[in-house]
Amino acid sequence: MPEISVIKIGGNVVDNPEALARFIKDFTSLPGKKILVHGGGKEATRMSAKLDIPTTMIEGRRVTTRETLDVVTMVYAGLVNKRIVSMLQAQGCNAIGLTGADANAIKATRRKPQPIDFGYVGDIAPEGVNSELIGSLLDAGITPVYCAITHDGHGTLLNCNADTIASSVAIGASRIAPTELIFCFEQPGVMEDIERPDSLIPLITPDIYAGLKSFGIVNKGMIPKIDNAFNAIAAGVESVTIKHSDALTVPAGTRIHSKLNTLNSTL
Amino acid sequence: MPEISVIKIGGNVVDNPEALARFIKDFTSLPGKKILVHGGGKEATRMSAKLDIPTTMIEGRRVTTRETLDVVTMVYAGLVNKRIVSMLQAQGCNAIGLTGADANAIKATRRKPQPIDFGYVGDIAPEGVNSELIGSLLDAGITPVYCAITHDGHGTLLNCNADTIASSVAIGASRIAPTELIFCFEQPGVMEDIERPDSLIPLITPDIYAGLKSFGIVNKGMIPKIDNAFNAIAAGVESVTIKHSDALTVPAGTRIHSKLNTLNSTL
Repeated sequence: MPEISVIKIGGNVVDNPEALARFIKDFTSLPGKKILVHGGGKEATRMSAKLDIPTTMIEGRRVTTRETLDVVTMVYAGLVNKRIVSMLQAQGCNAIGLTGADANAIKATRRKPQPIDFGYVGDIAPEGVNSELIGSLLDAGITPVYCAITHDGHGTLLNCNADTIASSVAIGASRIAPTELIFCFEQPGVMEDIERPDSLIPLITPDIYAGLKSFGIVNKGMIPKIDNAFNAIAAGVESVTIKHSDALTVPAGTRIHSKLNTLNSTL
Repeated sequence: MPEISVIKIGGNVVDNPEALARFIKDFTSLPGKKILVHGGGKEATRMSAKLDIPTTMIEGRRVTTRETLDVVTMVYAGLVNKRIVSMLQAQGCNAIGLTGADANAIKATRRKPQPIDFGYVGDIAPEGVNSELIGSLLDAGITPVYCAITHDGHGTLLNCNADTIASSVAIGASRIAPTELIFCFEQPGVMEDIERPDSLIPLITPDIYAGLKSFGIVNKGMIPKIDNAFNAIAAGVESVTIKHSDALTVPAGTRIHSKLNTLNSTL
């Protein structure tokens, strides 16, 4: 049984006040030690448009100029993070919002400009997550709420992908205690056909994943999520689930496992 | 001797990259336990203008509509707070950024709309500051960095005056250990004549303050700062100084004392 749950909510949930409110209640009701990681890309894109700052996405990742870095810092670390923290506090969950800079929670390295220059975008090394901080906050009954901003330790903030933050934090937490990672979003899980709710894939192993990819069944947006999930498992995270944000407290969604028989033995 | 220093930097320092960089170095070099409180009003006003949101100030305080609350949350808790935290981390100061919502650091009550409706503006009750959190962060070697956003505990963020946050936090800290409060800004201290650097008033007691006010010597912007200082001293803060941000590490500025002889005995 995992002792720590790391739960990531995507931008579409963050962007939907009713779905977010339901999620916040469910998250608060979860027993045990827990950590929240959130996105906010839709709000960042809207804010950029209002400020006449162009948004450029390459392979689903935001190109982060100096101006875009200011926008994502404002939106992720300010608007979205503090909204979520205050909502959690109202439910009785003693949340604290964090960027990677806060108490040196996550240190990252600016990505090299080749082959694609993503600007102020960070990659997180395995030792980049401050596990000691996670342990002391959780022991004090405080729930960390990470947004997708990190720092390089030399005074520069860096934009990260929230799924990567989630898997990195889960790996960092797994050094303290058995940890599960749950990706919550607006769909029931990984689907064979996004239009067919009954096409949920309940289990993905590396072999199944290879098959799904070769037949083009997994849609592009899911690939980094599943890759992150396998990375997390390879690095010590006990289990990874991809599920609907309304299904946090019930068994549901797609489980990612390193081996078929590993799943069988834990069912 | 104070064991905890609570230092507030004003919006003009935050807004000047060179002055801010010098201040951050000096702040990091200060020995002992320390807490930073920052403003950011100029940046909030600029961001409001970019977003076509009107800025209304009454008696030097920002009227905070729903839209303005989003702007100040983005600017104070996001842009400015995380910039300062990452700069402190780069100097080796283990800073953590906080709004009042984070770990329930400061709870406030929304101000009544009479006689002036300031909107989403909060007032901090004496017991509103989480002293236990301050103690555990400082004991862990972590430096809290507060921006001027609080919450009501029911899911609503509230805008506060950063000077008020500073004096409230200093009062909260003084419950743990002897605490000094230092307001740093772009002037040498309280001046008889803002144009004459040699007109610094080195000491203000309630009697001196009454005289200065009756002769109209203290400019309007300083009055809430000095009122906050006297409130802090009355509530247990050991000393309050108003000084230039470049003079953090040297004796300088205006000292606020409850009695003339109190000062003499500590000189």
